[in-house]
Amino acid sequence: TKGRGEIAGTITLVYDHHKSRVQQLLTALQHDQPGLIVASMHVHLDHDNCLEALVARGRAEPVKKMADQLIAAKGVKHGGLTITTTGKNLSA
Amino acid sequence: TKGRGEIAGTITLVYDHHKSRVQQLLTALQHDQPGLIVASMHVHLDHDNCLEALVARGRAEPVKKMADQLIAAKGVKHGGLTITTTGKNLSA
Amino acid sequence: TKGRGEIAGTITLVYDHHKSRVQQLLTALQHDQPGLIVASMHVHLDHDNCLEALVARGRAEPVKKMADQLIAAKGVKHGGLTITTTGKNLSA
Amino acid sequence: TKGRGEIAGTITLVYDHHKSRVQQLLTALQHDQPGLIVASMHVHLDHDNCLEALVARGRAEPVKKMADQLIAAKGVKHGGLTITTTGKNLSA
Repeated sequence: TKGRGEIAGTITLVYDHHKSRVQQLLTALQHDQPGLIVASMHVHLDHDNCLEALVARGRAEPVKKMADQLIAAKGVKHGGLTITTTGKNLSA
Repeated sequence: TKGRGEIAGTITLVYDHHKSRVQQLLTALQHDQPGLIVASMHVHLDHDNCLEALVARGRAEPVKKMADQLIAAKGVKHGGLTITTTGKNLSA
Repeated sequence: TKGRGEIAGTITLVYDHHKSRVQQLLTALQHDQPGLIVASMHVHLDHDNCLEALVARGRAEPVKKMADQLIAAKGVKHGGLTITTTGKNLSA
Repeated sequence: TKGRGEIAGTITLVYDHHKSRVQQLLTALQHDQPGLIVASMHVHLDHDNCLEALVARGRAEPVKKMADQLIAAKGVKHGGLTITTTGKNLSA
């Protein structure tokens, strides 16, 4: 592999945990595509809202697709993807 | 307050996400007692198993009670609580 | 307070830990402005590169200023800030 | 491999970031033994003290050795290791 398309990035989601099935979706995605999400961090914002930050790495296409799925999920109010790449080293 | 009983600690949970409602319980506990859990980190272990590490801080009693509730939850295979304290500074 | 300017967000940094003093800067910023960074997560990417995802919350201006400082720090190769807001609830 | 000795666990460290070189040691260990630490989370406790929670996985011996090194490091006030295992599935 030439490492093309290898990226690392952070997916940020803010959602209302009362109305959302983001956590179940997240867990399912993490376990179905085990290589893509390295770890995620969950922070309580207020009584309704959670912020979830996921560190993803892999080929650009599946990472972006996963981010789109999560950001489009029911109950997600805000979402964003920060993509980074450090060149060939990152694919090691 | 004299800061007595002020602790910080890590609650570790390993659970089968297919059989468990740990995530919903966790989210409910985090939002109902917002001061207790600062943040949590989720890591996929294999197709079935998740590891969740929660950083908690507060008075010893509610932190221990929350840890007991989580470790006793359905689907949790292993759990542990590491308590630390740094004396009066920690209660700041 | 009307919650104006209250945001939550994720700062993502990729840096070479051999060449960078990001960690010391990060720790200093976290402890000097304790309300701004809730928690941060560190992931190893390869022999040289780290990814750090920070969850920040507070008024927009200091959060953005901190992000700028971190992204501009020596050794940081890539950085990004995802800002979210959920309106008045977030300022609770 | 029969998965014997395969564990997952959380290493918790509380340290004074002014007096400690824990972060440099941590980063060096994470990059030298990339398979052992999946991710780590950092939380500010007060002006002096940090709590770091590391999720480790691998064979029991190197995980325990790494925990010992970190807990014994200069500036670390408290430390603990919670080891979990879910049997053969965990080695997948």
